[in-house]
Amino acid sequence: MLKTPRTKLTRVPQRGSHDSETLYAILDEALIGHVGFVTPTGHPAVIPTLIARDGDELLIHGSNASRTVRALRAGQEACVEVTHIDGLVLARSAFHHSMNYRSAILYGTLQPAEDKERALEVFTNKLVPGRWEHVRWPNPQELKATEVLSLPITEGSAKVRTGEPIDDEPDYALDTWAGVIPITTVRGDPIPDPRLPDAMDVPEHVRSLTDR
Amino acid sequence: MLKTPRTKLTRVPQRGSHDSETLYAILDEALIGHVGFVTPTGHPAVIPTLIARDGDELLIHGSNASRTVRALRAGQEACVEVTHIDGLVLARSAFHHSMNYRSAILYGTLQPAEDKERALEVFTNKLVPGRWEHVRWPNPQELKATEVLSLPITEGSAKVRTGEPIDDEPDYALDTWAGVIPITTVRGDPIPDPRLPDAMDVPEHVRSLTDR
Repeated sequence: MLKTPRTKLTRVPQRGSHDSETLYAILDEALIGHVGFVTPTGHPAVIPTLIARDGDELLIHGSNASRTVRALRAGQEACVEVTHIDGLVLARSAFHHSMNYRSAILYGTLQPAEDKERALEVFTNKLVPGRWEHVRWPNPQELKATEVLSLPITEGSAKVRTGEPIDDEPDYALDTWAGVIPITTVRGDPIPDPRLPDAMDVPEHVRSLTDR
Repeated sequence: MLKTPRTKLTRVPQRGSHDSETLYAILDEALIGHVGFVTPTGHPAVIPTLIARDGDELLIHGSNASRTVRALRAGQEACVEVTHIDGLVLARSAFHHSMNYRSAILYGTLQPAEDKERALEVFTNKLVPGRWEHVRWPNPQELKATEVLSLPITEGSAKVRTGEPIDDEPDYALDTWAGVIPITTVRGDPIPDPRLPDAMDVPEHVRSLTDR
C-alpha cells in the first residue's frame, strides 16, 4: 500500500497498518463504504453506498443520473471509509472509554469500470454469495442506466483497536466495573416476498446466510 | 429541518424525509458518524467518530492534536453521514437487488462546545446509558487534551428504505426466491477486564445492555 502524508497515521499509530491483506479483509466484510468527495460547488459530501472488491480495485455503482456518480465520473477525487464496530470499551475513567473497531480509508480517483456486467455479478454475489446464478441478469436498458466506478486500492490505511480498556494505573484501584461489550452484526431468518408461491423453499444459498 | 439544494432528495425522493424526529431517531441509534470535510490542502477526507446528540446539536470529540479536529475547528465545513443497514433485499432480477436502510446526512460548520465536561457526560452515557455515575470523571489535564465540537442540526435529510423487493412485473413469474434477510446489531455478554477483582458482579447498567 502506498504511504503518503495523508495515510500516515498520526494518532495512536501502533493501531495502524498499510498491509493489503488487513485492508482487504476489512473491505470484504463491509456491505457499505462512506464515499467522501468535494461537490462541483466546493462543498464536502459523504454518501453511503454498496462496495465490492474485485482484486485490487474497489467497485461502487449507482444510477447514471445520480449527482454522486456524475461528480466522481468527472474526476473528483474521493475518500472511501469503511468501519466495523466490534465492541464498547468500558474503562474506569470516562476519558479512557473507547470502542473496538476495524476501519479502512482509501484515497483516489474513480474510473468507469470497463465490464459493467461482470461488476454487477460481483455486487450481486457480494450481497449473497452465489446469488448471480439464480437471478434474471441485467438487460441492455438496465446496464445503460447503471454506472460502475472503480477505485484502485493503492493509497490507504487500516486502523484496528482490540482488547480490554487501558486505564491510568491509579484508576485500577477503583471499584468500577470495566471491560468490553462485544458488538456483532447478525443476519436473521429470511422473510419471503409476499408474492412468492407458498410452496417455494428457501434455497441453500439464501439459507446459509442466516447466522442463527 | 432547513431544505436547501443539497438536501433536496433527487434519487427516489419518496424515501426521503426532512422531519427532525426521523433524523433524531437515526442519529440516536448510531454510535458513529462519518464526518466528511475538505482538508487544508483541498482533498476530501472522511473520518469515523463517536457521535452524540444533545438536543438540536450533534457532538463529536477528539484529541486537540488530531488533524480532523484542527481542520473542523478552523471552520472547515462538514458533512456528517450516519447509516443503519436493516436488511438485504433479494429481488428476482440482479438490477433490483437492494438494501433496507436508514440514513441521515447533515451539513454545517462545527463550533467548539462551551461545556466540555457536560459533553463528555453525554458521550459516556451514549455508549452506556447511566455510565457517567459509575466512572472517574475527567480531570483538568484530560479536559484540556480533549476538544468537543458541536454541529447545529439544521440542514439535513433522512432516507429510509423498508420492506420487500420491488421487481419488474414480468419477473414475478420467475422461479427465483425473493425476500429480505434482516440484519441487526447485537450486544453480547460483557467481557470483564482481566484486572477486575474476581468477586465483582456485572452491574445492572452494563448487564441491561446485553441483547440476548
